[in-house]
Amino acid sequence: MSQESSRQSVSSAEETSDNNFTNHAHAIHVRNAPSVLSKEAPPESYRGFLNLAMLILAANNLRLIIENFLKYGFLLSTPGTIAAPYDYTCLMICFLVLPLHIIFAFYIEKITIRPFLNEIKLAKKEGKEPTITPKIKSINKRAGILHTVNITFILLFPSAVSYFIIFHPFLGSIALFNGLALFFKLISYAFVNRDLRLSQLIGGISSSSKEETKIPIIDVYSVQYPNNITLKDLFYFWFAPTLCYQPSYPRSPDRFRPGFFLKRCGEIAIACTMMYFLVEQYANPTLRNSLRAIDELSLVSIVERVLKLSTISLAIWLLMFYAVFHSTLNLLAEVLRFGDRSFYLAWWNSGSLGTYWRLWNRPVYQWFKRHVYLPLVDNGVSPRVASFIVFTLSAAFHEFLIGIPTHSLKGFAFVGMMSQIPLIEMTKPLEKWRGKGSTFGNVIFWMSFCLVGQPAAILLYYYQWNMTHQI
Amino acid sequence: MSQESSRQSVSSAEETSDNNFTNHAHAIHVRNAPSVLSKEAPPESYRGFLNLAMLILAANNLRLIIENFLKYGFLLSTPGTIAAPYDYTCLMICFLVLPLHIIFAFYIEKITIRPFLNEIKLAKKEGKEPTITPKIKSINKRAGILHTVNITFILLFPSAVSYFIIFHPFLGSIALFNGLALFFKLISYAFVNRDLRLSQLIGGISSSSKEETKIPIIDVYSVQYPNNITLKDLFYFWFAPTLCYQPSYPRSPDRFRPGFFLKRCGEIAIACTMMYFLVEQYANPTLRNSLRAIDELSLVSIVERVLKLSTISLAIWLLMFYAVFHSTLNLLAEVLRFGDRSFYLAWWNSGSLGTYWRLWNRPVYQWFKRHVYLPLVDNGVSPRVASFIVFTLSAAFHEFLIGIPTHSLKGFAFVGMMSQIPLIEMTKPLEKWRGKGSTFGNVIFWMSFCLVGQPAAILLYYYQWNMTHQI
Repeated sequence: MSQESSRQSVSSAEETSDNNFTNHAHAIHVRNAPSVLSKEAPPESYRGFLNLAMLILAANNLRLIIENFLKYGFLLSTPGTIAAPYDYTCLMICFLVLPLHIIFAFYIEKITIRPFLNEIKLAKKEGKEPTITPKIKSINKRAGILHTVNITFILLFPSAVSYFIIFHPFLGSIALFNGLALFFKLISYAFVNRDLRLSQLIGGISSSSKEETKIPIIDVYSVQYPNNITLKDLFYFWFAPTLCYQPSYPRSPDRFRPGFFLKRCGEIAIACTMMYFLVEQYANPTLRNSLRAIDELSLVSIVERVLKLSTISLAIWLLMFYAVFHSTLNLLAEVLRFGDRSFYLAWWNSGSLGTYWRLWNRPVYQWFKRHVYLPLVDNGVSPRVASFIVFTLSAAFHEFLIGIPTHSLKGFAFVGMMSQIPLIEMTKPLEKWRGKGSTFGNVIFWMSFCLVGQPAAILLYYYQWNMTHQI
Repeated sequence: MSQESSRQSVSSAEETSDNNFTNHAHAIHVRNAPSVLSKEAPPESYRGFLNLAMLILAANNLRLIIENFLKYGFLLSTPGTIAAPYDYTCLMICFLVLPLHIIFAFYIEKITIRPFLNEIKLAKKEGKEPTITPKIKSINKRAGILHTVNITFILLFPSAVSYFIIFHPFLGSIALFNGLALFFKLISYAFVNRDLRLSQLIGGISSSSKEETKIPIIDVYSVQYPNNITLKDLFYFWFAPTLCYQPSYPRSPDRFRPGFFLKRCGEIAIACTMMYFLVEQYANPTLRNSLRAIDELSLVSIVERVLKLSTISLAIWLLMFYAVFHSTLNLLAEVLRFGDRSFYLAWWNSGSLGTYWRLWNRPVYQWFKRHVYLPLVDNGVSPRVASFIVFTLSAAFHEFLIGIPTHSLKGFAFVGMMSQIPLIEMTKPLEKWRGKGSTFGNVIFWMSFCLVGQPAAILLYYYQWNMTHQI
């Protein structure tokens, strides 16, 4: 018992005594008081227990790291040797093909400008208001067909290469991921330029008197059509951290900050190293050990494996999220002075799965909202059906992005994504009941997404891969 | 992507459009915004990550429970069979001896009253102020010697029984624990009654004019000496949840609440069951597995074992704390209508080890403060030395309480307790630097006490026990 805070605190009677005979009899218990943990006690802080919980979490994981080391030693191989050199060559080719698609998309727009402007001039010469003539419709149609062909090949080529030629799933997904991003971007590019053209039909004459024509003027951009149709503009869009094309973007006020850039580079390097380490040292052995549990269909063992995987896969997923959505997109934005950097919002506080899907991946969310959901709703489709269509498309893309590189289009990812719809419906009343961002809803969100869903999916695909390839 | 929150939030331009041709071109990126995780972003809540950490903690431990079950099945034996029937008999005898000591202590006080009161009467008859005469000194001395003999035997008998006769360490510690509690109580009883007597010497005549005599009047108690010298009063003190004797205690205002009583009983039953389960199912196998690591002196393995033990020993310790300091002491207090129930304060928020030792065990802290520390300081000993003496005594009692039942008085517990002094000195500047109850200090406290200290001590004693007994 340390007594250094000494005398003040015990009882006032002590103060007068300095005779050694009479210290012992002073009252220690002088008033009624409940125990701190009793219901009748005034509220007390339990922050210490929170610190303890965090400490145990750290200790538990430190222990697992040591246990893993004692069991396996170091498992890392040289990063470059995970796949055959042939795979890397194929990946390179997939990259090099992409600029060709971009140049093609640019020329489609370029050759559409002249006949379109001629058509407007013609109308003006005749004193008519320029409007959607059959000629303009056919111009747009031709551009649409050419874009469709171009965009289709963006996906087809890397899909074929990574399904039939590239063996390693990781390299295959990189090829597909880049193809898919450009696929989204060029769809947006085609749609936006078509609508910019159509908005010129009335914007070229007068903007104030014609509000009832239902073709609103797009005047929020600092660049007007057709001045935006340049190769430089399109290459800027290719690298820009967005999937939604705009003739101009808000630009960051500061000039390029080398410190910011280098920090993001460092983050990417560290995150990639950590992810590689986690995959090789923790995920792989755990997955290998789980094959037997799945073979035996031992439910208790499978649950144990899923729980062990959950922490690892969550750590990898969080690192991936940070490296891609914070570091990489901010790095691109800094180089390109791209101003709107809300690539994600605070999804970690989500009170329901629906909120999570709206917040975590803003580029894809915004693309689907601008180019699929709102056009559907404006054309009279009910919001619920439009949502369903968006989710079905998103599920198809997930299946595409995971199924093709792992060479197993069995629909696991599709079903996983589609199962989000009932889950969202189930967690929606929760959010209404407990309020937005309630702890209860948040815990349900984390449980359904990160602890149960992800590791189970990884196990499934790993099992599938090993069944097919018999490593 | 779920879009049900739909249209309001994207951009104001959308509101005017219901023509399907012009939806795609609307601006999505309209203003500069930093990423949420950037330094330049406004502060954001990270409560979701806290929920996630708690969830992972739960998942990790659920996984360890399953792993343990898969490895060992159920390990529980019938609780009663852990020790030999002979051991239980010895424990019973140790209990039955205690009331004899109480009765003896009562008679020591009883036979001291008459000569003492006579002495006062004599002084009054002679018109003198009653003061500390040689006769009174000798009366007190005789009482002191008798008390010393009585109190020494309280400790000696259970120590001998549990060191030489009782084999099972748990039963031995129960015998010792009860003996030690009565030991503390009767020391307090002897000292307090001596000082109450001495305070009568002046209190019997006038209390106002004699402040400079340095013998202050104890008038905070509702019972005056010698009316407190009854067997009933002493038995009340025996069962009362305090180690400090007072002629009267603050009593709880409510009458006996059966609901409160039954809840505490239920808590004790549940906590004991859980502790038993934790010890048999988790602590024992972990300890058994760790013997090899200690034999091989493999540092990495020992650290891994200590970390694995830490969660288990912490859970057991917290259950023990709750069962003893909250449930049992409150139960006793409720039956005895004992009012001052601050048996512990919020030690879990401690910012340093010193604070922890002051808060977690109030009965012992108060006893040492009242009967050792303050008398020493009042006799001119410096607070630092007095603290050191208190800690040395406390360390000796720890060694006694752990070393005797485990039959190994090697001084591990003594050294462990004494090492608290430098640790307290080291964490004191921390508390000053970061403020009381800082997170940093609190984490250091938990680390030093619960994660490193305890499991290491348990491992040591377990190893020692197995070396001696070769189970």
